Amino acid sequence: MTQKLKKHRRSDKAGLPPGSLIHVGEKKMGDVALHLMRYGVDVLDERSLSDFHDYERKDSAGVIDWLDVVGLHEAPLIEEIGETFSIHPLVLEDILNTEQRPKTDEYEDFLYVVLKMLDIDEQTGDLTIEQVSFILKDNLVISFQERIGDVFEPVRERIRSTAGRFRRLGADYLLYALMDSVVDRYFVILERLGEQIEDTEDLLLAHPDQETVRSIYKMKRELLILRHAVWPLREAVNTIRKTESSLIQLQTRTYFGDLYDHVIQNIDTVENFRETVSGMLDLYLSSLSNRMNDVMKVLTVIATLFIPLTFIVGIYGMNFKYMPELEWKLGYPFVWVIMGFIAFAMIYLFKRKKWL
Amino acid sequence: MTQKLKKHRRSDKAGLPPGSLIHVGEKKMGDVALHLMRYGVDVLDERSLSDFHDYERKDSAGVIDWLDVVGLHEAPLIEEIGETFSIHPLVLEDILNTEQRPKTDEYEDFLYVVLKMLDIDEQTGDLTIEQVSFILKDNLVISFQERIGDVFEPVRERIRSTAGRFRRLGADYLLYALMDSVVDRYFVILERLGEQIEDTEDLLLAHPDQETVRSIYKMKRELLILRHAVWPLREAVNTIRKTESSLIQLQTRTYFGDLYDHVIQNIDTVENFRETVSGMLDLYLSSLSNRMNDVMKVLTVIATLFIPLTFIVGIYGMNFKYMPELEWKLGYPFVWVIMGFIAFAMIYLFKRKKWL
Amino acid sequence: MTQKLKKHRRSDKAGLPPGSLIHVGEKKMGDVALHLMRYGVDVLDERSLSDFHDYERKDSAGVIDWLDVVGLHEAPLIEEIGETFSIHPLVLEDILNTEQRPKTDEYEDFLYVVLKMLDIDEQTGDLTIEQVSFILKDNLVISFQERIGDVFEPVRERIRSTAGRFRRLGADYLLYALMDSVVDRYFVILERLGEQIEDTEDLLLAHPDQETVRSIYKMKRELLILRHAVWPLREAVNTIRKTESSLIQLQTRTYFGDLYDHVIQNIDTVENFRETVSGMLDLYLSSLSNRMNDVMKVLTVIATLFIPLTFIVGIYGMNFKYMPELEWKLGYPFVWVIMGFIAFAMIYLFKRKKWL
Amino acid sequence: MTQKLKKHRRSDKAGLPPGSLIHVGEKKMGDVALHLMRYGVDVLDERSLSDFHDYERKDSAGVIDWLDVVGLHEAPLIEEIGETFSIHPLVLEDILNTEQRPKTDEYEDFLYVVLKMLDIDEQTGDLTIEQVSFILKDNLVISFQERIGDVFEPVRERIRSTAGRFRRLGADYLLYALMDSVVDRYFVILERLGEQIEDTEDLLLAHPDQETVRSIYKMKRELLILRHAVWPLREAVNTIRKTESSLIQLQTRTYFGDLYDHVIQNIDTVENFRETVSGMLDLYLSSLSNRMNDVMKVLTVIATLFIPLTFIVGIYGMNFKYMPELEWKLGYPFVWVIMGFIAFAMIYLFKRKKWL
Amino acid sequence: MTQKLKKHRRSDKAGLPPGSLIHVGEKKMGDVALHLMRYGVDVLDERSLSDFHDYERKDSAGVIDWLDVVGLHEAPLIEEIGETFSIHPLVLEDILNTEQRPKTDEYEDFLYVVLKMLDIDEQTGDLTIEQVSFILKDNLVISFQERIGDVFEPVRERIRSTAGRFRRLGADYLLYALMDSVVDRYFVILERLGEQIEDTEDLLLAHPDQETVRSIYKMKRELLILRHAVWPLREAVNTIRKTESSLIQLQTRTYFGDLYDHVIQNIDTVENFRETVSGMLDLYLSSLSNRMNDVMKVLTVIATLFIPLTFIVGIYGMNFKYMPELEWKLGYPFVWVIMGFIAFAMIYLFKRKKWL
Ligand SMILES: [Mg+2]
Ligand SMILES: [Mg+2]
Ligand SMILES: [Mg+2]
Ligand SMILES: [Mg+2]
Ligand SMILES: [Mg+2]
Ligand SMILES: [Mg+2]
Ligand SMILES: [Mg+2]
Ligand SMILES: [Mg+2]
Ligand SMILES: [Mg+2]
Ligand SMILES: [Mg+2]
Ligand SMILES: [Mg+2]
Ligand SMILES: [Mg+2]
Ligand SMILES: [Mg+2]
Ligand SMILES: [Mg+2]
Ligand SMILES: [Mg+2]
Ligand SMILES: [Mg+2]
Ligand SMILES: [Mg+2]
Ligand SMILES: [Mg+2]
Ligand SMILES: [Mg+2]
Ligand SMILES: [Mg+2]
Ligand SMILES: [Mg+2]
Ligand SMILES: [Mg+2]
Ligand SMILES: [Mg+2]
Ligand SMILES: [Mg+2]
Ligand SMILES: [Mg+2]
Ligand SMILES: [Mg+2]
Ligand SMILES: [Mg+2]
Ligand SMILES: [Mg+2]
Ligand SMILES: [Mg+2]
Ligand SMILES: [Mg+2]
Ligand SMILES: [Mg+2]
Repeated sequence: MTQKLKKHRRSDKAGLPPGSLIHVGEKKMGDVALHLMRYGVDVLDERSLSDFHDYERKDSAGVIDWLDVVGLHEAPLIEEIGETFSIHPLVLEDILNTEQRPKTDEYEDFLYVVLKMLDIDEQTGDLTIEQVSFILKDNLVISFQERIGDVFEPVRERIRSTAGRFRRLGADYLLYALMDSVVDRYFVILERLGEQIEDTEDLLLAHPDQETVRSIYKMKRELLILRHAVWPLREAVNTIRKTESSLIQLQTRTYFGDLYDHVIQNIDTVENFRETVSGMLDLYLSSLSNRMNDVMKVLTVIATLFIPLTFIVGIYGMNFKYMPELEWKLGYPFVWVIMGFIAFAMIYLFKRKKWL
Repeated sequence: MTQKLKKHRRSDKAGLPPGSLIHVGEKKMGDVALHLMRYGVDVLDERSLSDFHDYERKDSAGVIDWLDVVGLHEAPLIEEIGETFSIHPLVLEDILNTEQRPKTDEYEDFLYVVLKMLDIDEQTGDLTIEQVSFILKDNLVISFQERIGDVFEPVRERIRSTAGRFRRLGADYLLYALMDSVVDRYFVILERLGEQIEDTEDLLLAHPDQETVRSIYKMKRELLILRHAVWPLREAVNTIRKTESSLIQLQTRTYFGDLYDHVIQNIDTVENFRETVSGMLDLYLSSLSNRMNDVMKVLTVIATLFIPLTFIVGIYGMNFKYMPELEWKLGYPFVWVIMGFIAFAMIYLFKRKKWL
Repeated sequence: MTQKLKKHRRSDKAGLPPGSLIHVGEKKMGDVALHLMRYGVDVLDERSLSDFHDYERKDSAGVIDWLDVVGLHEAPLIEEIGETFSIHPLVLEDILNTEQRPKTDEYEDFLYVVLKMLDIDEQTGDLTIEQVSFILKDNLVISFQERIGDVFEPVRERIRSTAGRFRRLGADYLLYALMDSVVDRYFVILERLGEQIEDTEDLLLAHPDQETVRSIYKMKRELLILRHAVWPLREAVNTIRKTESSLIQLQTRTYFGDLYDHVIQNIDTVENFRETVSGMLDLYLSSLSNRMNDVMKVLTVIATLFIPLTFIVGIYGMNFKYMPELEWKLGYPFVWVIMGFIAFAMIYLFKRKKWL
Repeated sequence: MTQKLKKHRRSDKAGLPPGSLIHVGEKKMGDVALHLMRYGVDVLDERSLSDFHDYERKDSAGVIDWLDVVGLHEAPLIEEIGETFSIHPLVLEDILNTEQRPKTDEYEDFLYVVLKMLDIDEQTGDLTIEQVSFILKDNLVISFQERIGDVFEPVRERIRSTAGRFRRLGADYLLYALMDSVVDRYFVILERLGEQIEDTEDLLLAHPDQETVRSIYKMKRELLILRHAVWPLREAVNTIRKTESSLIQLQTRTYFGDLYDHVIQNIDTVENFRETVSGMLDLYLSSLSNRMNDVMKVLTVIATLFIPLTFIVGIYGMNFKYMPELEWKLGYPFVWVIMGFIAFAMIYLFKRKKWL
Repeated sequence: MTQKLKKHRRSDKAGLPPGSLIHVGEKKMGDVALHLMRYGVDVLDERSLSDFHDYERKDSAGVIDWLDVVGLHEAPLIEEIGETFSIHPLVLEDILNTEQRPKTDEYEDFLYVVLKMLDIDEQTGDLTIEQVSFILKDNLVISFQERIGDVFEPVRERIRSTAGRFRRLGADYLLYALMDSVVDRYFVILERLGEQIEDTEDLLLAHPDQETVRSIYKMKRELLILRHAVWPLREAVNTIRKTESSLIQLQTRTYFGDLYDHVIQNIDTVENFRETVSGMLDLYLSSLSNRMNDVMKVLTVIATLFIPLTFIVGIYGMNFKYMPELEWKLGYPFVWVIMGFIAFAMIYLFKRKKWL
């Protein structure tokens, strides 16, 4: 059975009761995938669930469950997960509405974090944007994403490895690791954008054209997207770092502090790029004006040089019966001398005005 | 009897005592309509009142009255309502003056909320703006609007339905639901504006003209209106969420928190659009300059190519008696060779300057 | 005795001790006028004082004195008033210096409020600006203004009328009423400015010229004046509203809260107008560029069409003895055909470039 | 012995230990001058010290010493003064470094205030800038300035006079009076700048040229200097007003409050001027564009009118043997008719486009 | 063995666990150098360590160790140092990642400070940027820099000298001295930039060209770098000044207060320069427009003067058989008179329009 990808829009929800579970955004993949990772110091159980009913919570101390939900378009599944873990309907609504702004909401027994995962499409080079939500409960992290991707794979590797300290740490550290891997991707994107900016700058100084303006405009828009991803994230990370909730242990707060630093660095770079890109358009306009000036000078030099001369030859092209100069023996060379004098005078003037 | 719609202006009130009940703004409909909805878990009574004296308050626990007043131009009616429910004259004045800025005022036994309901006129595509005020008292919500509309209809549907939990919730939840339906409409407007912006962008890159500038200017003004509607609303919703008044129950505050999120999202989008639209004018100007450059190059190439040649043919159009070249057998082809050479040299120069 | 109106400037006070009573500003009327209004529930006494010594304070409960001083250029009178009511010399200095910024200063037993009264000169249509100061003491308000005007007349009417509640209210309510009548005038000015802005917008889109720029510039300056009047007023009104002084009664604070709303509305409108007006210059420049483009296209089309043709006819105007084409029977029509072909090719090219 | 005025720069101090006493800035006068004024209710002793060792402190109640040090280039003298009055080396360093930003530093037993004294050079009309530092101790004020000037002269006059209350007031009042006389000078400078701005505006509307741009640019820079003088001064004055130090008496705080007002007024005016001046460049550019438009229209009208006509006369200047029109009896007048028709058509079109 | 300098990028760390020690940035020198300075009132021991194992801590009261690590590309060495002094892995990661933003992090028993050392490359005149980190523990300062330089040399000299008080002061003073020497370098850079700005201004007014724009653009970027170095440094220094940690003694706080002043001065100057440089581009554009105007006027004067005249001589160059004027005796001089009249009329008009 073929299934068309359809896009729900925010306006489809206008007038519906709060907590109405409707997926807002593009449907980015076929079936929803559930992936469970259960780990502790000596425990490691990793599997894909074909049905959420296969999931069973086991409350043994130090054993952490990470449930990764990929695909947001099956509202009933999300609702069921919500009921199982007693998540407030307004949170479920936010998870499904992919136009959230990054934030952290504190509830009595869980934390809800939502942020934007950005990436660069390898084919088109365009920026892709995806919403990722996290629920942090006691010994449990649920992540919701829109599309399969490899951003969390390094985290899985670190859990699988027995070498690291990861399995000894709590669910809060898992939340940190997942958020950190999202933020790390921002650095990659900003580096690429930085290269693009440098290329455009070189182009702008060498031979600016309308195409360059389009690429400036495109970068401006991508920076706007990045800005909307990172600015509110600062507050979201800070809320976790400063929360009074016991879900975040003291030692993990240092890690969230480091993450906070990374977000600030991203904000700095974004603002820096924004200013550079915004200055480019001025540079482009000044460069255009400069060239226009050059064009106008050439036109003016040629025109003001030859128009008077053409007038002179026009005079002696007249057919009056009585024009004494025409009869002179040296009339013709004399005209050349006059024209030569005028031409030299003009050129001297242009030189003085530095137009030549 | 025909009745002319007249508009009172803010300046008509200059010098009047505070609390003077004069409707400020356009009169947007004929008669004032009163609609009462009385509901509780097992109660549902809905009717139009032709006269406010038909209204009678019944204080039974869990029964909520929603009185919807449509049309603000009958000041005595508003005054009577004010007296019945002991509303401060300054509040009544604000209800009638449709140039309020969104806000929440806390009084001892009621909350006063005023905001802007925006819509798109289906005929003209223009933004319409209407002021909506709410009074929240114990088990009572009074809404004041300027014009009949269907924005509150979904709320009425939810009250009528026995399925939902609506009737079990308090008057504060009703206030939330009404405000939410107003804010939901902003999303619809912003989506349409977003489409317009994208269309204009395409137009701007394809073939910009003065018409595009007008539409940019129009969008700028609509965004200014939206901005004035949403920015102060943030503070207004926050005041409700954080109020110490017992009129707002704990569980409803979560809903107002969600509404607050929506307002912030609206603000973000508005600011985003504002920046995009403001950048468009620069794009337009750069595109104009570019085209001017092209025009100038064409003019310059043609003029500097032919003006010297025209000068040369002018020379041999002179009628001097003694012009040796005219007598030469190969004078004419020789002139062609010289002109050909000059033309090629010019074209070579233009190519090097990349004007061709 | 004729008396020349002279203007003292702020710099005339440089180096003088603080509290030096010198009138700074233009002298705006001939003699200083004193007007006393004494009222209570059953009392109403209103008269002009030709001499301040005629004034006598009577301290009976519920009787309020409003002393209105019109004209600030007689420093000794102001000093005498100051001594009579024990007003700090620095306050007297501020009253006389008409370049104050709106503010409220709290002293032990009185409040000092200064603000700007703006108006539109009926003859010239220009904005006039006047400084108004208020002293609020127990059962006493002294107002100082620079020029006779009718702004306070409605307040006097309300005091005279036995119908209203005015006479039952305190001196703080009188202060509110006076300040409110000043702020109400701002609405009137802003409405007129709003109309001017709309007119200028229409003009700008229809046929912009240098005159329009001048009127934009004038509006910009008037908005700057308005801005300086309303922005600090917000803080000044808020200080009264939140003061711990017993001079402001609880019930009057609600009225000052309403006044505060009005000031905020004024600020909003001013900022709104400022943005609109500032965008106008960009619109004007884009419109100029557009027109220049049109002019250039016409020039370019005509010039590039005829310059090559003129060259061709120039060729056959040469007087070479041996020019075979001149002898051809069909030489002349042939040249016409060639020129026709060139003209059509050019026109086709212009059409494709959308210059025609 | 002649002595060359040399300028130390901030970078000469790079790497030196803190508190290194090196004068940074231009040396603005020959020898350092010391002037002592000792006064109390019945005491007045005023003299110039040729040597700082001549100074002797006398601690009698109510007797205040004001030591005025003019010239900062003799570091050992400043060091000696510092040791005598136990001033922290970092403060001495700040006194000598004339690139301080206005500030107030509170130390245990003294206050340190530094600000900028601005003036207008009578010869060149340029803004001059000088750093003034104050040390306030018990019954003692030390002022440090770079150059002899008459700004403090009015304060000396008031001290000398037995009439005023000055001598009855404390050292904190002296500090106030000195700072006030510096700030008063700002008003004078701003008034002159205001006149310059108005002159430039008139010039800009009448006949703008590159010279006007230069003067706009000069005003911009002077406003930048003023801005750097007044903005931090606000904080500096506020620190004094709010200090917990007993060096500032309660009654003097009112005076510092007045000074604070003056600084705010200066800030307002500076920002106002900055906005006006910044708008001037836009006005200039719009005026330039307008003129360019006029120039282009003239060129276009003349060129498009005569180029086609010149083409026509060119046709009949050709020398083809067989050109029937040339033989016509009415050929010549006919051509005139055609050209007349073309000219009228063109002129009609230009009128319609409002280019004429 | 030759060793290629390779650059690690921030993105190489994406997905790695926190605290992964990888050097991010350019490798700026060959081998890592360790330099130890151990000093107290009577102690001075200074040597280069070829191996970190040569280092041995000696805890005697009043003896301070300053370990200067130059070169950050040997991660294992940094890790070893980190273990020896129990530094948190996240701090080590920050030390190695040279894209930190200046900050101070407080840990239980140490302070971590990171800032940017800027310098001017003597060969190229370009700004170089280097990251410097400091660890302050009890009686210990560790500094980490990327490259050998002479910025800290004056500090070493002051330690070596027995004259100064340096050796009597604590490790916190050493930290201050090192940070101060970095900040002092900013003044040097800003002075040079200030000179460049002045030179560019002169150039801009004398003969602006595209090269000037490039140098404006370059200054803009350097100011952006400076801005990112100094703005966050303010907070970093303030954190030290206000810290509750006992690592910073009371008397040293005054010195950090002075450093804070210097940072603020730097910020002021940077913002000042930014505004000046940003205004330059506007000046350049206005200057370009002005020149274009001049060019256009010359073209227009010449063209509108000669085009009509050329038309006239064209008329009498026509070959019509019947052209009465050609037969006139005074036809030729008559034409001259007419042309002379037209030329004078044109010149009069141009004069009136002030184009000549
Ligand atoms: Mg909803
Ligand atoms: Mg939500
Ligand atoms: Mg994904
Ligand atoms: Mg990270
Ligand atoms: Mg950066
Ligand atoms: Mg710009
Ligand atoms: Mg009113
Ligand atoms: Mg109101
Ligand atoms: Mg409605
Ligand atoms: Mg909603
Ligand atoms: Mg509006
Ligand atoms: Mg967005
Ligand atoms: Mg713009
Ligand atoms: Mg004074
Ligand atoms: Mg004052
Ligand atoms: Mg008046
Ligand atoms: Mg009012
Ligand atoms: Mg408004
Ligand atoms: Mg503008
Ligand atoms: Mg130093
Ligand atoms: Mg200092
Ligand atoms: Mg001086
Ligand atoms: Mg003063
Ligand atoms: Mg002003
Ligand atoms: Mg500008
Ligand atoms: Mg990482
Ligand atoms: Mg880090
Ligand atoms: Mg180094
Ligand atoms: Mg320093
Ligand atoms: Mg400066
Ligand atoms: Mg600027």
